[in-house]
Amino acid sequence: MNVSPIFWIAPGGAVIALVTALILALQNMKRSEGTEPMKEVAKAVRIGAMAYLKQQYKGVILFFGIVFVLLCVLAALGLQTWFVPFAFLTGGFFSGLSGYIGMSVGVRSSARTTHACKTSLNSGLRVAFNSGMVMGLTVVGLGLIDLSVWYIILNAVYANLPTVERLTAITSAMIAFGIGASSQALFARVGGGIFTKAADVGADLVGKVEAGIPEDDPRNPAVIADNVGDNVGDIAGMGADLYESYVDSIVASMALSVVAFASFGDTTSVNGLLLPMVLSGVGIVGAILASFLVRAGEKAEQKVLLAALRRGTYGATILSGVLGFLMVKWLLPGHIQVFWSILSGLLAGVIVGYFTERFTSDSYKPVQSIAAEAKTSPATVIIEGLAVGMNSTIPIVITVAVAIITSYYMAGGASNPGLGLYGIGISAVGMLSTLGITLATDAYGPVADNAGGNAEMTHQEPIVRERTDALDSLGNTTAATGKGFAIASAALTALALIAAYRGEAVHMSERVLGHVKDMDLTLLNPRLVAGLFLGAMLPMGVSSMIMRAVGRAASKIVEEVRRQFKTIPGLMEGTGKPDYAHAVAICTKAAQREMIAPSLLAIIAPIVTGLVLGVEGVAGFLAGGLAAGFCLAVFSANAGGAWDNAKKFIEKGNFGGKGSPAHHAAVVGDTVGDPLKDASGPSLNILLKLQSMVSIVVLGLVLKVSSYLPWLR
Amino acid sequence: MNVSPIFWIAPGGAVIALVTALILALQNMKRSEGTEPMKEVAKAVRIGAMAYLKQQYKGVILFFGIVFVLLCVLAALGLQTWFVPFAFLTGGFFSGLSGYIGMSVGVRSSARTTHACKTSLNSGLRVAFNSGMVMGLTVVGLGLIDLSVWYIILNAVYANLPTVERLTAITSAMIAFGIGASSQALFARVGGGIFTKAADVGADLVGKVEAGIPEDDPRNPAVIADNVGDNVGDIAGMGADLYESYVDSIVASMALSVVAFASFGDTTSVNGLLLPMVLSGVGIVGAILASFLVRAGEKAEQKVLLAALRRGTYGATILSGVLGFLMVKWLLPGHIQVFWSILSGLLAGVIVGYFTERFTSDSYKPVQSIAAEAKTSPATVIIEGLAVGMNSTIPIVITVAVAIITSYYMAGGASNPGLGLYGIGISAVGMLSTLGITLATDAYGPVADNAGGNAEMTHQEPIVRERTDALDSLGNTTAATGKGFAIASAALTALALIAAYRGEAVHMSERVLGHVKDMDLTLLNPRLVAGLFLGAMLPMGVSSMIMRAVGRAASKIVEEVRRQFKTIPGLMEGTGKPDYAHAVAICTKAAQREMIAPSLLAIIAPIVTGLVLGVEGVAGFLAGGLAAGFCLAVFSANAGGAWDNAKKFIEKGNFGGKGSPAHHAAVVGDTVGDPLKDASGPSLNILLKLQSMVSIVVLGLVLKVSSYLPWLR
Repeated sequence: MNVSPIFWIAPGGAVIALVTALILALQNMKRSEGTEPMKEVAKAVRIGAMAYLKQQYKGVILFFGIVFVLLCVLAALGLQTWFVPFAFLTGGFFSGLSGYIGMSVGVRSSARTTHACKTSLNSGLRVAFNSGMVMGLTVVGLGLIDLSVWYIILNAVYANLPTVERLTAITSAMIAFGIGASSQALFARVGGGIFTKAADVGADLVGKVEAGIPEDDPRNPAVIADNVGDNVGDIAGMGADLYESYVDSIVASMALSVVAFASFGDTTSVNGLLLPMVLSGVGIVGAILASFLVRAGEKAEQKVLLAALRRGTYGATILSGVLGFLMVKWLLPGHIQVFWSILSGLLAGVIVGYFTERFTSDSYKPVQSIAAEAKTSPATVIIEGLAVGMNSTIPIVITVAVAIITSYYMAGGASNPGLGLYGIGISAVGMLSTLGITLATDAYGPVADNAGGNAEMTHQEPIVRERTDALDSLGNTTAATGKGFAIASAALTALALIAAYRGEAVHMSERVLGHVKDMDLTLLNPRLVAGLFLGAMLPMGVSSMIMRAVGRAASKIVEEVRRQFKTIPGLMEGTGKPDYAHAVAICTKAAQREMIAPSLLAIIAPIVTGLVLGVEGVAGFLAGGLAAGFCLAVFSANAGGAWDNAKKFIEKGNFGGKGSPAHHAAVVGDTVGDPLKDASGPSLNILLKLQSMVSIVVLGLVLKVSSYLPWLR
Repeated sequence: MNVSPIFWIAPGGAVIALVTALILALQNMKRSEGTEPMKEVAKAVRIGAMAYLKQQYKGVILFFGIVFVLLCVLAALGLQTWFVPFAFLTGGFFSGLSGYIGMSVGVRSSARTTHACKTSLNSGLRVAFNSGMVMGLTVVGLGLIDLSVWYIILNAVYANLPTVERLTAITSAMIAFGIGASSQALFARVGGGIFTKAADVGADLVGKVEAGIPEDDPRNPAVIADNVGDNVGDIAGMGADLYESYVDSIVASMALSVVAFASFGDTTSVNGLLLPMVLSGVGIVGAILASFLVRAGEKAEQKVLLAALRRGTYGATILSGVLGFLMVKWLLPGHIQVFWSILSGLLAGVIVGYFTERFTSDSYKPVQSIAAEAKTSPATVIIEGLAVGMNSTIPIVITVAVAIITSYYMAGGASNPGLGLYGIGISAVGMLSTLGITLATDAYGPVADNAGGNAEMTHQEPIVRERTDALDSLGNTTAATGKGFAIASAALTALALIAAYRGEAVHMSERVLGHVKDMDLTLLNPRLVAGLFLGAMLPMGVSSMIMRAVGRAASKIVEEVRRQFKTIPGLMEGTGKPDYAHAVAICTKAAQREMIAPSLLAIIAPIVTGLVLGVEGVAGFLAGGLAAGFCLAVFSANAGGAWDNAKKFIEKGNFGGKGSPAHHAAVVGDTVGDPLKDASGPSLNILLKLQSMVSIVVLGLVLKVSSYLPWLR
């Protein structure tokens, strides 16, 4: 069976993305890294970051090996197809590769950004933003190319099946691809998050608070570890994270398309299945075109630069919308209404971004109110921050709920529920179709942050540090927006996966049990309700483990920094040199050890739930985890972002400015927010999807075991 | 139609409870209040507390008037029966009365406890515990008597209907009784919570932190307000709260009994309906008998007293279990398996209590780990506390999930889902059947706390303050256990109410639409899923409003205390007298104003959800709220409790003891935990049930409106 010519838009877009990424990377590499000391600092960060990734991949390879064997066992028992273990491996490989490439360019761009800042703010932005674009385009390019290859292979393998059966078989195997990407992403996010926050908190607690030296001061032995953390957590971790969001939303929609279009004939069925991939393909073109809008004059100020970045993302949104409309019109002329679902997703992304900024930028009341509480005490800073974070869930959850309802009904769910569910999936694809550029605005932040660190450590002129600071603060705003975007897309994707779960349960029960299993997915099923409770609890459980892990790792760094301050002669006076590498090694070791427990809990919990409470229990578990985890993720990201910017607001000179009691109180808030916003919070995005993925992959096992348990039969 | 003779066990138990409460109250009143200064302090607290309640009831009466009129409109439109508005009023009245009586005895017992502590620790315990017993027995007595009266009236009114129809009509009207109790409870909890924490935080921030004077120092102008707060929040608020838990669990189970036993004949149907009331009746007897186990020798130490209190609650659990078994055997000889559901509830209550203590007592690792983090910084105290609170959800949610599953299947849910749901309801009734004494161990805490305040303010000998401190610390342990118990019972009750909601939806749709409405309560219904998201968000939304309200009110108190310190000459030297009443008035006013918005949000949200997303949307909303709200409530209570006891652990001399940097860091944790554990957290228990209640009462309206909306038809 030949693939439809329309299909080639997807790999075509992917190739364009990868080629553009390569060009941008080469452009950046041509620039100078500046003076010798600048190169040296950059090299130290690069070596630390690469050493960390190497270590991390070692652990992950072991995990992948074990799971691969287990999946082979499932396949040998006939509880899965033989494609699953291999799709799992490629998903993990490409997810890791995305993070690796993005980080490689990132660590090579920071000193170059510092150097460019000697010229102008705009030059600095260009280097950092290019590095972000490389990350964004690599993620979408690799994701789409891998999906395309699997589609071609599976389409050929199942060529002899009738269309609907063929599409079912294809999507069923491709979902396993997601689980590999998600597992890899979880380790990257959790491990990277623990690393970066342990280094950050550890460096701050001893450096800023005890020794009274500024941030990024070269005398602080944890300063390189802090910079390494930005790269491994916020670049490699985030790349792997969004890689999995991207491919998960696509495969979930593909799986949902089969039921949605089954009654509309073969061409429509195939086109419905291809639409998510094609949309992503044209989205890449939109993102690249829009990236040309991110320019400003050489003397541009921060505000102008923010406007430039916004022009880029809004431009991509509009382009993706227009191109998406054309694709729907072309591929599904009888279902043009599906476009409204895509639009819901695109708009929801923009609206969530707006509200996220509203709650985390110091231009608005919430952050200012936290800063004002700093006048009273650290306790009131924390209370107000918790309240702001919780409060921010209101508009964001409402926005996503509205997106769910509109994308379902607009796609025609009222008369054809299958179409409605497809609408939800495709809205997530729509939201993520601009990922090439939205991720760029996010991933450039850590590069700018590192550029600032480099400037501080190499004692650049104040103007350079001012410019890198401006870039960094710009990055904070876009990072918050990016986080909102990542969470919202995760919620929609996870919901699509839950719907796909039910379809897969039908499919697998036919395969494993020989008949379609009766499933009571109503709220009156006590197993579903018990699952709902357990699912709602898990995000808190996993968060607590990650936060504690950060705490433990941070206290190791605190001890190490104190030790170096004490034992290395002349360190504080600048005559002795701290042992940066040792601090990096401690973070690496701690992150590697600490990432195991929460990751395993996330993976094992849905399996245990399935074996005890059956398919319906898992459905409840996934739904409860999604609803509660979504809220907790929004809370974590926004409380953390708001505390961070409240501190920065005071540092700008408000309420007494740097060094005042208000500033000390605000630093407490910032430190509390760090693990929430950069370690436990982002891990929840992945958790939501990974749980669905794991549940889908072990469905055969759960169904088989259930058939032996009297209460699940 | 005559009521079954078995029925009289319920009002019989209620009368015994009320008579015993009266005897205990009179016993306490006979004791001396001590010296004149002691009487004076007690009087000031009493006047402040009563003034607050008077003010609160004024506001609540207005609210009840408005809702009464609205319910009359619904009744006039045929969307409800005419009993609903009146049942609503009595529910609110008795809930308020329970709080009022409990608090009246409480404020009259604190000075008497102080005085008794001059004799021995055990004497002090007896006075404080008697006061708690009065509260506990008043709650269960009034609850059961009111339910009994309504049962008699409705049974007579509907005497001519066939049994199943009659029972449906009775329970349908009685549920409205719960909404009155719940609304009253919400105002009491939110208002009281804001009052007590504003006063507490305000007094501590200026007194302890700024002025450096000890807790309960008479020079602190907010000290009386702080003591008033314990009474209005932790006694009146908690009394109203548990009153509604108690009656809600009973009416929910009664409503579920109708479907459960419909096919087993009239006698079984009636007996199944009566069982929840009868169980509660015999539970009262068990609680009173077990209260005699709470004794210790005159020279007993704290540990012995804790063991005595435990003997009381464990004794009541065993007695309730045995008596419950006999009742099931007698009333439902064909359904003896229902007993296992009761036992699940009783055991779950004990296990949740155990885990709560595990996470909040300083004898265990979690609290000690928070205290250890205090050596580093306030930020790490907060991070560790957040992690402990989140972590505590794991065992507690698992316990409740297991209770759900066992109580459902043990009752026979596998073959008869109606029986299974009844099993869940009756497990909540079982858990709460020991309320007479469990509430006593909880409500005695604030009395002991106030007794300590009285001792400090009247400069009693150190031994007296030591003894009141021992009682107070004992109260902290039992209060934490009590909170766990309140949350777990709320979760089970709310779940029973959701099941009852579905039954009522069937019943009301027949009544309002003339046919049973088709309801898709599966997780594939997008309206249900959107509801799930919104429901999961609301507990965070309401919590954030309450926490902010506490913050705003507390800063008013801070200003006032600072003002008095500045303007009243000789205050710090002890020659001038602070204006206590003004601080109380500020708290009262602030609490009254601030309680409106979160309470209204809680009441209006499910109505709006119903009007936009229909019956299924509400079902999702309730389930999402339950699962996420339960976790958030457990988190709030245990994080707060753990911070509190970590501070106390340091005050005992660990990590530097009082006044050390570690102590300052721990005080930050304690202050952050205050609004979580005593204001926003406990309000969630009520929120969960109130939302179900409101949804049930407006079902007629929602169904009618839905029939005009194309997407809900």
